[in-house]
Amino acid sequence: MPKTLQELRRLVADLPAADTEYAERARARDAELTKPAGSLGRLEDIAVWLASWQRRQPPRADRVGVLVFAGNHGVAARGVSAFPAAVTAQMVANFRAGGAAINQLCAAVGATLAVHDLALDTPTADFTRAPAMSEDEFLDAARRGMAAVDGDIDLLCVGEMGIGNTTVAAALCCALYGGSPADWVGPGTGVDGAGIGRKAGVLAEAMRTHGRALDDPLEVARRLGGRELAAILGAVIAARRARLPVLLDGYVACAAVAPLPALNPGALDHCLAAHVSAEPAHRRLLDRLGKAPLFDLGLRLGEGSGAALAIGVVKAAVAIHAGMATFAEAAVSGREA
Amino acid sequence: MPKTLQELRRLVADLPAADTEYAERARARDAELTKPAGSLGRLEDIAVWLASWQRRQPPRADRVGVLVFAGNHGVAARGVSAFPAAVTAQMVANFRAGGAAINQLCAAVGATLAVHDLALDTPTADFTRAPAMSEDEFLDAARRGMAAVDGDIDLLCVGEMGIGNTTVAAALCCALYGGSPADWVGPGTGVDGAGIGRKAGVLAEAMRTHGRALDDPLEVARRLGGRELAAILGAVIAARRARLPVLLDGYVACAAVAPLPALNPGALDHCLAAHVSAEPAHRRLLDRLGKAPLFDLGLRLGEGSGAALAIGVVKAAVAIHAGMATFAEAAVSGREA
Repeated sequence: MPKTLQELRRLVADLPAADTEYAERARARDAELTKPAGSLGRLEDIAVWLASWQRRQPPRADRVGVLVFAGNHGVAARGVSAFPAAVTAQMVANFRAGGAAINQLCAAVGATLAVHDLALDTPTADFTRAPAMSEDEFLDAARRGMAAVDGDIDLLCVGEMGIGNTTVAAALCCALYGGSPADWVGPGTGVDGAGIGRKAGVLAEAMRTHGRALDDPLEVARRLGGRELAAILGAVIAARRARLPVLLDGYVACAAVAPLPALNPGALDHCLAAHVSAEPAHRRLLDRLGKAPLFDLGLRLGEGSGAALAIGVVKAAVAIHAGMATFAEAAVSGREA
Repeated sequence: MPKTLQELRRLVADLPAADTEYAERARARDAELTKPAGSLGRLEDIAVWLASWQRRQPPRADRVGVLVFAGNHGVAARGVSAFPAAVTAQMVANFRAGGAAINQLCAAVGATLAVHDLALDTPTADFTRAPAMSEDEFLDAARRGMAAVDGDIDLLCVGEMGIGNTTVAAALCCALYGGSPADWVGPGTGVDGAGIGRKAGVLAEAMRTHGRALDDPLEVARRLGGRELAAILGAVIAARRARLPVLLDGYVACAAVAPLPALNPGALDHCLAAHVSAEPAHRRLLDRLGKAPLFDLGLRLGEGSGAALAIGVVKAAVAIHAGMATFAEAAVSGREA
């Protein structure tokens, strides 16, 4: 577990790579299955991707974990959300009671949900005036995320809950990629045009306050981020070290890990973008991350809901790859010469 | 069961409508669930759509049936497929033995697969020279499709297998919507540019051969179609009469039902397009049908595979709609004033 930002940086610089031999074995089997080559599109790629990270042929998607991290944000006091900050804790209780969307999604596909609330009574500082977190607070949250990962599962989904955190996500993106604040803000849970204007104003203030300190991607995560985002960053690093494939959720979850490729270009190779959300900047962020989402169903809930919805697609890809007959087994003729 | 084209036409002219009262009840419940309004995007629409056809609140997606119809095509002899026509029967055997992609997809989501082969030893006539089917042959296939539908299930998926049938689908689209043959043909199972050129040539011949007879949408289905496409058309009509929601598969399955809106504009209101396939003309066809696909994963296999992959999304939508807590139940605060 990293005790300093420098140790965390070294961890990210030295990550295991996908196993190309398992990728080749999966591609070789795929080519024998009773279907035209390439006719299952991204389902084929998913099977190969899983095999290359799990180092297992065929790959598996039986044990799936969904981690939801929750945090509160000083910037929520600036009128950037349609909901009061108390909703973060109320929704955590709802997750624990089984009443939220993510509970139903996990039950529907047999995934295991774990919810981690991170110091909800102590919101981060308002990042327009000060760093959102001290180094200790940031590293603490990142370590919580790392410790939450069970490396023995087959697939991990990461999600979040935190009133105000689409503003936090937008701040991270604006600092990492530049552009105008308006490029990165949107309605979130449902603010109107004035609310979106407030979000952009908050971002402009933050960029002025933190200035050149934002040249360091981990400082971006610490100064502008939030505990649930830091935990997601930690969980995604821990998953990578365990060679565990990850499904990313929406705008906030993707923004949480966006600092990583700035430290190590391949740092998110073990992650698939489950979906593109209705939050307009999510597509722009996915483009910057070089990730093509699996689907676009207009979701904008967070909680890991988009990632959990993609579990069924990954399970289908594995079932097909592992279970189909080959041309030889089924005595099906191949292509004509 | 219709005994003449005229009886079939009358059946299509007089179809039950969605129940708006159940749609309203589903919308009302959705508005109370512990999530920002609209934040589950198309999942919300799916629940409402199911409720309005099933006349049940909450709707269900427990019993799902997948019907795959298989047929052979005279036009396959014209070099329009990368695979020999014998593959149709070989793949039917593969379906029966459990070795195909659709078997794994059905098993993964607990759907029931039924495969219907339609006179595989008697291909339709080459439609460049004569009608593909006689009236009796066409109606027979349509009735096979109608009889295959179990109206007691919650959701139906329709798919097909038939070497050469992307050329058949293209011919239907060209006749129904006009445009050049090149607009509607594509690689199918994987033909090269020369093969695509042959497909376009075959379409041009067919349009000349059948001329104004193609002004009648059911004549398009009979003269240019195939038995598996006629069966899908019949199944989709039978589903509608049973108020059973349908997931459409790819280019061929959608082309099979494309004659219906030309007879009755709302005839496909009970159908959702599961996906847009890699076959380039599928998107153009979905636009003509006014259907927005749930996903775009580059599939181009047929067999009902795209529809079956969408079952998980529908089940998720139902699980969320039926299982989530309301704001009141969970004591979660609503929007701020």
